[in-house]
Amino acid sequence: MAEQRDERASVSPVRIGDVARAAGVSVGTVSKALNDRPDVSAATRERVRAVAERLSFRPNPQARSLSTGRSFAVGLLTTDIYGRFSLPLLLGAEDELGDGDLAVIFSDTRGDPQREVRQLHTLMSRHVDGIIVNGRRIERRPPLSDTGGIPVVYALTGSSDPADCSVVPDEAGGAELALSHLLASGRRRIAHVTGPRRHSSALVRADATRAYLRDHGLAVRGRVRFGAWTEMWGRAAIAQLLEAAPDVDAVFCGSDQIARGVLDTLREAGRRVPDDVSVVGFDNWTVMAEASRPPLTSVDLDIDRIGRLAARHLVSAIEGREPPRHTVVPPRLVRRESG
Amino acid sequence: MAEQRDERASVSPVRIGDVARAAGVSVGTVSKALNDRPDVSAATRERVRAVAERLSFRPNPQARSLSTGRSFAVGLLTTDIYGRFSLPLLLGAEDELGDGDLAVIFSDTRGDPQREVRQLHTLMSRHVDGIIVNGRRIERRPPLSDTGGIPVVYALTGSSDPADCSVVPDEAGGAELALSHLLASGRRRIAHVTGPRRHSSALVRADATRAYLRDHGLAVRGRVRFGAWTEMWGRAAIAQLLEAAPDVDAVFCGSDQIARGVLDTLREAGRRVPDDVSVVGFDNWTVMAEASRPPLTSVDLDIDRIGRLAARHLVSAIEGREPPRHTVVPPRLVRRESG
Repeated sequence: MAEQRDERASVSPVRIGDVARAAGVSVGTVSKALNDRPDVSAATRERVRAVAERLSFRPNPQARSLSTGRSFAVGLLTTDIYGRFSLPLLLGAEDELGDGDLAVIFSDTRGDPQREVRQLHTLMSRHVDGIIVNGRRIERRPPLSDTGGIPVVYALTGSSDPADCSVVPDEAGGAELALSHLLASGRRRIAHVTGPRRHSSALVRADATRAYLRDHGLAVRGRVRFGAWTEMWGRAAIAQLLEAAPDVDAVFCGSDQIARGVLDTLREAGRRVPDDVSVVGFDNWTVMAEASRPPLTSVDLDIDRIGRLAARHLVSAIEGREPPRHTVVPPRLVRRESG
Repeated sequence: MAEQRDERASVSPVRIGDVARAAGVSVGTVSKALNDRPDVSAATRERVRAVAERLSFRPNPQARSLSTGRSFAVGLLTTDIYGRFSLPLLLGAEDELGDGDLAVIFSDTRGDPQREVRQLHTLMSRHVDGIIVNGRRIERRPPLSDTGGIPVVYALTGSSDPADCSVVPDEAGGAELALSHLLASGRRRIAHVTGPRRHSSALVRADATRAYLRDHGLAVRGRVRFGAWTEMWGRAAIAQLLEAAPDVDAVFCGSDQIARGVLDTLREAGRRVPDDVSVVGFDNWTVMAEASRPPLTSVDLDIDRIGRLAARHLVSAIEGREPPRHTVVPPRLVRRESG
């Protein structure tokens, strides 16, 4: 990081972060002050302007861009815009970056590494101040090849380089939260129905489920059932399970869609939820969880917060501070009526 | 439009569009040629470079920005990022603008007019080449106050100024498509369950439904039922309807979520779909439509295509051509098993 900053400093004599530090305010406040925004006090505005003038920092984006090599924009390089997770992340980041103070340049790689290289090149040629890289899968990813010293924060999908700044969810912790809730409500014969075995999220959640139950002297009822992230699989899996382990008293599901299918088939089989069988989902996809019968209790990985923290850490790095390298955001259990 | 272009021309002596016109290629090709991208022939690259040089057009983004007043970026000003419609629109636009050739600066107004003004100001201070304004509601919206001659295209939600370029869906046409399909399959006692009466999409679809049935000597079975865009409302409405009009043989639903609730309750009431009752949804929200039992036939407003056309029209305007002022994108019916 220190090397990267030096490299950057040689390209850009006066950066927004220098003004912020010298004035003792945030980058956002510098922007607001220099852009005549109403939500900054007159005193702060004057102080920031004086500092900017002293440092020869120029407020006009084009002129500033030439003098500082910076654009006052950040890139969001996303590999999975179709996933339901990109949007909350983008919104969280936008909230944190502030109401138009820093522009977000959107780049969608669509999971294509060559496209990622081109998009990165484009962002760099635009002299963005920083980049958030957003993946969906929880396997760590290789870091971006070379960003010429531009700070990068990895969100949702962490970087495989421990020196990078990553903000990631706690998948195993989410599973433990669901199971501790089920155990606390007296359930002991707990099944687990989840997504494809080749998908790390499914594996990590399943491993955490097995380990947690083992630590409590229990085993997964009717073995872990891997399949697809769909309602159809939820329906099929619970039908098999009711044959193989008819005394099941709880089903922890790897996604809300799976849980939805499980709930529908349990009801049609005459099992009362949660009286006979508790069901807990994963993701807290509101539209799915609220329309379930009964409404679905679900694990929420707090993707909004991951987005906000990633943006906050990126601003720290842009301001020349050292953000934490690895942040794990704790999950929450959103209780509704299914368990 | 002509006035706007003149105004722009006075600020920016050489624009990317000038190079494109002089070289006889698209703006995207100019960018590719000047950015050494592989997907342009050597001959084209040379021709574009020669033209750019002759016109003193500079390829470096910062230098170009100073010399032309243009940034080679477009703003996407969206009022409704939470809606499921922003993302397909963004992807469609990104596809059309080309793989990183034009950056998309993302601005989310969250439906707040003051925030919209600030975001617009920010986009203008960044000298974007053009702006796509994306709403969700189908009521026309007032045009942006003053964009200083920057071309604007309104997508999904049209501008109330007929001189503006708008690309909008055909809500009434979508309803007619669903009804003509139901009539063709022999249905005559057709109910309509839809969203809130205060929401124009619900009203327009309902009016089109009444008019189409009237033109075919029929009436909506059991009156139009306005409610909410939810499965819960679909379940409640069809339960009422089965009391009020038990001979209903088709239900046209204002959304896929409503249709999903209708399907579930019909099944639980022992009605076979589509044998006894056909059900058609609206929006073609794949995850919802495919998980339905049976999978749901649904109207697709082709939002991707609206995004692509909006971007294409914006590129036309940036290149100094005159895009069509009002484009209505035809809907499609996606047939599955429910009707």
